[in-house]
Amino acid sequence: MTNELNEKWLRLQQAMQQSGADGCLVASNRNLYYLTGTLFNGYFYLPSEGRPHCFVKRPPMPVVAECHTIRKPEQLPEWLFRLGLPQPRVLMLESAQLTYAEFVRLQRIFHGAQTADASQPLSRLRMIKTPWEIGQMRLSAQRQIELCALIPQCYRKGMTDIDLQIEIEYRMRKLGSLGYFHTCGADLEIFMGSLLAGDNAGTPAPYDFALGGGGLHPSVPLGANGTRLEEGMAVMADMAGNYTAYLSDMTRVYAVGKLPEKARRAHRTALEIEARMEAAARPGAACADLYADALAAARRAGLEDCFMGTRFQSKFTGHGVGLDINEAPVFTPRSQEVLQAGMTFAFEPKFVVAGVGAVGIENTYLVTENGVEKLTEWNEEIVELR
Amino acid sequence: MTNELNEKWLRLQQAMQQSGADGCLVASNRNLYYLTGTLFNGYFYLPSEGRPHCFVKRPPMPVVAECHTIRKPEQLPEWLFRLGLPQPRVLMLESAQLTYAEFVRLQRIFHGAQTADASQPLSRLRMIKTPWEIGQMRLSAQRQIELCALIPQCYRKGMTDIDLQIEIEYRMRKLGSLGYFHTCGADLEIFMGSLLAGDNAGTPAPYDFALGGGGLHPSVPLGANGTRLEEGMAVMADMAGNYTAYLSDMTRVYAVGKLPEKARRAHRTALEIEARMEAAARPGAACADLYADALAAARRAGLEDCFMGTRFQSKFTGHGVGLDINEAPVFTPRSQEVLQAGMTFAFEPKFVVAGVGAVGIENTYLVTENGVEKLTEWNEEIVELR
Repeated sequence: MTNELNEKWLRLQQAMQQSGADGCLVASNRNLYYLTGTLFNGYFYLPSEGRPHCFVKRPPMPVVAECHTIRKPEQLPEWLFRLGLPQPRVLMLESAQLTYAEFVRLQRIFHGAQTADASQPLSRLRMIKTPWEIGQMRLSAQRQIELCALIPQCYRKGMTDIDLQIEIEYRMRKLGSLGYFHTCGADLEIFMGSLLAGDNAGTPAPYDFALGGGGLHPSVPLGANGTRLEEGMAVMADMAGNYTAYLSDMTRVYAVGKLPEKARRAHRTALEIEARMEAAARPGAACADLYADALAAARRAGLEDCFMGTRFQSKFTGHGVGLDINEAPVFTPRSQEVLQAGMTFAFEPKFVVAGVGAVGIENTYLVTENGVEKLTEWNEEIVELR
Repeated sequence: MTNELNEKWLRLQQAMQQSGADGCLVASNRNLYYLTGTLFNGYFYLPSEGRPHCFVKRPPMPVVAECHTIRKPEQLPEWLFRLGLPQPRVLMLESAQLTYAEFVRLQRIFHGAQTADASQPLSRLRMIKTPWEIGQMRLSAQRQIELCALIPQCYRKGMTDIDLQIEIEYRMRKLGSLGYFHTCGADLEIFMGSLLAGDNAGTPAPYDFALGGGGLHPSVPLGANGTRLEEGMAVMADMAGNYTAYLSDMTRVYAVGKLPEKARRAHRTALEIEARMEAAARPGAACADLYADALAAARRAGLEDCFMGTRFQSKFTGHGVGLDINEAPVFTPRSQEVLQAGMTFAFEPKFVVAGVGAVGIENTYLVTENGVEKLTEWNEEIVELR
């Protein structure tokens, strides 16, 4: 673990030197965990050269770096002085994780310093996973595969989508799901995943997930809405792969009885789109091209109008995954990103078929030296519920 | 619902006029729900006089105010112009909810305006609940009471704390728990509540909750940690009361067999502290005094060193509750708040007894004209598990 963290600190210091920053102060939960392997209430400070320091307001203390107890961030400059560290002239702070109030408080404390953004460089570092991180994702993926195989046992005739989801959630927890499902961005609220049955799959939601669903209450409008599961209905299960801190992301489609031909054809098209991506994805492949190719294939199949939704169509087909379910890169029309070895991403071509529900597929991939490896390898056909 | 919202908008306009703001732009999920009764991806704009407008990036559209579709916030000033609304000279933005990047983007868009904070005024409005909001909290409390009565049925000999918690979570969902548990502040992560058994109750956590617990994984260090439930152990259940958007908060203590006298005495002391608060709490009572009285009672009982924790002791005994579990006011030594009719708060005197676990109580109260009403009225004695 120490080597793992040393490597991350070194990469962050390289990013700091490139942007002319001589200090980086991190305070958000996920970035603290990324950089220390633990979670504490306080700050991680990395100078552009030398060792990091942790300033801890509240236990438990991290054991990986030198640790100092503080009551409030106003004590930080004096601590740097005491430790013989120079006051930063250019200080990186997390503009996309800290609230305005928190960020400005730190700016005032380090009033002699220019501030630069830490969120973007950290997001870019987090894109490329270490071997240990990939191992954690493999563990999550393994549990998620086990869950997908258990879902038919959760089904009983006459159930609603939420009844089924509750049974699935229960088995997730028994399999070791950590519960809390991490997303990047306070606005992206999701409980343990999304289960979409029938026409609810076409209901738009305010959140930037691939599909929506009306949800159980106007305060959390996402996913299952109480739809009774009926013959000929597709049930798409996109539940959290949060069995370690590193997530996997995987969607499979279940069906009550047999689905009509249009839905089966749309599902086959999704598998074709996935196969095309798998053939094209390798270091250097552009995320925007992989998106465009998916959209073109949906268009050729005459299914463009129900690709990634109907009343509202998401403008992405994949996204990075790691400590958060929505990391960089994103597979959008305008993405500037190209794949790099060590990236992990979810690819999720999905269609919403009126009167039936959502079909399609989602898997998590690791970018290797010459292609991609599927971490969530499991049956991709529609599984019948009976 | 329309009257309810009209009333809220009017109160917000009064707060705006007091602070000299002529526009308020709200973008965070919880404040959007508070002000519109729905959730959308976009902005709620309230001028200091007249009707609000919703600017919606992503469906569903709210139905309660005039609605306009936008792609990005840069279109807002032109929309105001088109609608015949003056550009704000002092614009309130949510400094404690928006990230620095989001806040600064809006500041740049409205570069002619001074910015003022919307978070604090909205937090003060949200402290005082409307009759409809209180009704929603009563519904949540009713379900939470049902859950507390079901907990003994979840227990089986040989279980761990997490086994028991999973059974409880399953019943919560069956009772209608909405799942996602709302807290204010990105750093305050909690799944469906906290179950603390034995000495794990004394383990400090990084989060600002009343008690900690080691949790199942270093990335989410809170609550149950896999402790096997054994004879003479206290099990404190502080699970989410999220059966509507408005939360109730309630803790009860269960025991495997009989607890030793020190723990039973600490529990009685917590009930006495609660009774003292109930006798003193009314409009005008100071939250700091109610905190000090609780601490003094713990001290008289010789239990100060295990009040609100042991290795780390929380410096509050209660907190407002509503759309978030941690609202204003907070019962701390330095609080400046006094109770007002219509406030709802949780009061939670708790002790951690070495070798036994956590005992104590938590209930949710409504401040009435001349006292408080307990919304979570149910047996407060320690319930035996067998």
